[in-house]
Amino acid sequence: MKTGLTFLIAARECEIGELEQLALTSALVGAIGRLVHALQRERGMSNVFLASGGTRFAEQRTAQIGTCDAIAREVRGQFDALDTQAGQVRNGARLFNRIAVVLHGLDALPDLRARIAAQALGQDESTAAFVRLLAGLLAVVFEAADSATDPDISRALVAMFNFMQGKEFSGQERAFGGGCFASGHADGAHQQQWLHLIESQERCFQVAMNFSDASVREAWQAAEKASPLADLERLRRIGCAPRADGHLDPDLSQGWYDACTLRIDLMREVEELLATRLRTLCETRIASARAELRDQQAILATLSHEAQAGASERTAGYGPQLDRSILTMVQEQSQRLQEMNDELETVRASLNERKLIERAKGLLMAARKVDEAEAHKMLRQTAMNQNRRLLDVAQSVLAMSDYL
Amino acid sequence: MKTGLTFLIAARECEIGELEQLALTSALVGAIGRLVHALQRERGMSNVFLASGGTRFAEQRTAQIGTCDAIAREVRGQFDALDTQAGQVRNGARLFNRIAVVLHGLDALPDLRARIAAQALGQDESTAAFVRLLAGLLAVVFEAADSATDPDISRALVAMFNFMQGKEFSGQERAFGGGCFASGHADGAHQQQWLHLIESQERCFQVAMNFSDASVREAWQAAEKASPLADLERLRRIGCAPRADGHLDPDLSQGWYDACTLRIDLMREVEELLATRLRTLCETRIASARAELRDQQAILATLSHEAQAGASERTAGYGPQLDRSILTMVQEQSQRLQEMNDELETVRASLNERKLIERAKGLLMAARKVDEAEAHKMLRQTAMNQNRRLLDVAQSVLAMSDYL
Repeated sequence: MKTGLTFLIAARECEIGELEQLALTSALVGAIGRLVHALQRERGMSNVFLASGGTRFAEQRTAQIGTCDAIAREVRGQFDALDTQAGQVRNGARLFNRIAVVLHGLDALPDLRARIAAQALGQDESTAAFVRLLAGLLAVVFEAADSATDPDISRALVAMFNFMQGKEFSGQERAFGGGCFASGHADGAHQQQWLHLIESQERCFQVAMNFSDASVREAWQAAEKASPLADLERLRRIGCAPRADGHLDPDLSQGWYDACTLRIDLMREVEELLATRLRTLCETRIASARAELRDQQAILATLSHEAQAGASERTAGYGPQLDRSILTMVQEQSQRLQEMNDELETVRASLNERKLIERAKGLLMAARKVDEAEAHKMLRQTAMNQNRRLLDVAQSVLAMSDYL
Repeated sequence: MKTGLTFLIAARECEIGELEQLALTSALVGAIGRLVHALQRERGMSNVFLASGGTRFAEQRTAQIGTCDAIAREVRGQFDALDTQAGQVRNGARLFNRIAVVLHGLDALPDLRARIAAQALGQDESTAAFVRLLAGLLAVVFEAADSATDPDISRALVAMFNFMQGKEFSGQERAFGGGCFASGHADGAHQQQWLHLIESQERCFQVAMNFSDASVREAWQAAEKASPLADLERLRRIGCAPRADGHLDPDLSQGWYDACTLRIDLMREVEELLATRLRTLCETRIASARAELRDQQAILATLSHEAQAGASERTAGYGPQLDRSILTMVQEQSQRLQEMNDELETVRASLNERKLIERAKGLLMAARKVDEAEAHKMLRQTAMNQNRRLLDVAQSVLAMSDYL
């Protein structure tokens, strides 16, 4: 028969199991970070390639496709390593569903690339296809962050997700701005979208730093210092405040691409640091949970031995001293789990913003029969027109759901 | 290599696995309901036995102990049936920890009963010991409700938990009032605690009914109609508004016990209905999830067959039609999981009140070095003194945590 002691140990083993699962997911997040980075480069190159009528970046693009494919194989390997048996992965239904979307996107890449090579689609369409795939990859990271049961690891995953999302906005800005410069034109709508991409990335990096420790914050400051920020801001100014006829100098596209790429590559280093810290954190937490389990077992073994020595006097139970020790451990464990849960809820609250926006988008998609990109555009347009935050618009949409 | 299709199916299987886990937990909740009911009777009998100096309920109490032990063996059997292997039970760490507390309490029962039989402890101490054990059993139900991933089942578990908690407050009222009548005395402090127990149970039943369907609400109305509410309210009035000297007629204790017991037994029938509906709900949800999985697999098999017939034209992938079908299914599944999650968060919000109070208690226990019962008493006393809800006091305590 299972005793209180069995369940005390089982509770601790569950914790360790969840931590090990988190370590796997964290390794997956690291690999996804590398793939996202490579695909972001491919997107930027494809955009300049298309905007220049196939005259720029043809060779680099081919090389980059090779890089992407190699990393994609690695990520697929990590997906394969996930235990898809029911019950093994927390939040499995949502995580696996996100992965199915990503695999679908990766399967569609060869066709997309062939159409880009043949210049059979516009740069907007090309960008949109890459943005969808990257959004799918980030959604996997989001589910990982949302399913973490350890507050410290959850914090690290939230920082990682927000940093990756901020970097993705930077990547979108590179592609978007690159397209504007290469085509030699930008109008008022372009300008608004550009500013939106700048604001979005800054907010993400802010959240990421709020959930990071001092060493990451220092690395981020150093990266920003090493970035060609002055060049970048000058080109942003030119792009976001174009001449009245909307003309932009196409020769600036190379400089724009280089400045953005230098900054994004520096971001990648900070992201690598975040991934390393996440991995270390998982290892440390697993090691300490295992050590605590061993300590508990040792104490209980000693007491059990003592209890057996005096067992002739009693017929059942562990004896009063062992009983008290178990109860104390159970109470301490309860208290700790409660504290962890409280902290976890605080960390997770930071993920709610995205959830609200996703819900508002889903509502618009259903009510207006539009796709996700269109729904996002509607929200963003309303936010820009009314000079409100995307989150506030999303909340209004949800509040008005009965009228939609 | 695992494909999008693998993960689409795996996501669905995860859902089914979680539902099966919930069915097990729900069966456990049903058994706990029966044990709680039996222990509540034993508590009431023990109290009258002690208050009457051992002259009342001696035989019934012995019989009730036998009933309790039989049901406790059944509950232990359900605990044994739980898969304590890491990762098999969602929220395992917290659930198993709660179970460890319960098993500890059950192991201590024989000693408690011997002391009651020898009249070696007061009725307050006896009541407190039973209240602790019952609180531990209810905490298991709470964790089950808090870990449910299906909104409908979560709703049913929230209703169940609140109903059980309301019934437990009724049981506490029976024991408390029984003690007052049997001892022939009640003062102002007794009166306040009595009123608190009445209010608490009413609020719990209200929440339980908010999360129940019409059939349960009708059963609850019928149960209340069949209850001796007029007798109960008359005795409550006598007990809560005693004569200036605090004297109560000890001969009323039998009538009080009978009226309370009749009502609580009727509650038990509603609780049984809730348990049955919970079980049926789990079965229905599992059956429909399995049917949906079979449907998906059938559609995919047909398409895959068609795709193979035309496979000579292509070298990789499922073919465009199959690809689109998979993507549609993935998107529908994503949308459904998102909606389920939103609904789930709404349902779970109702559990936050208890969590806040638990956190405030934990804070007081740590800051003032008191035990849980004392911390709860402090909160309740403050609520009564300031004429505020327990929840509001708990929130104030948490807000002032820096000063404690």
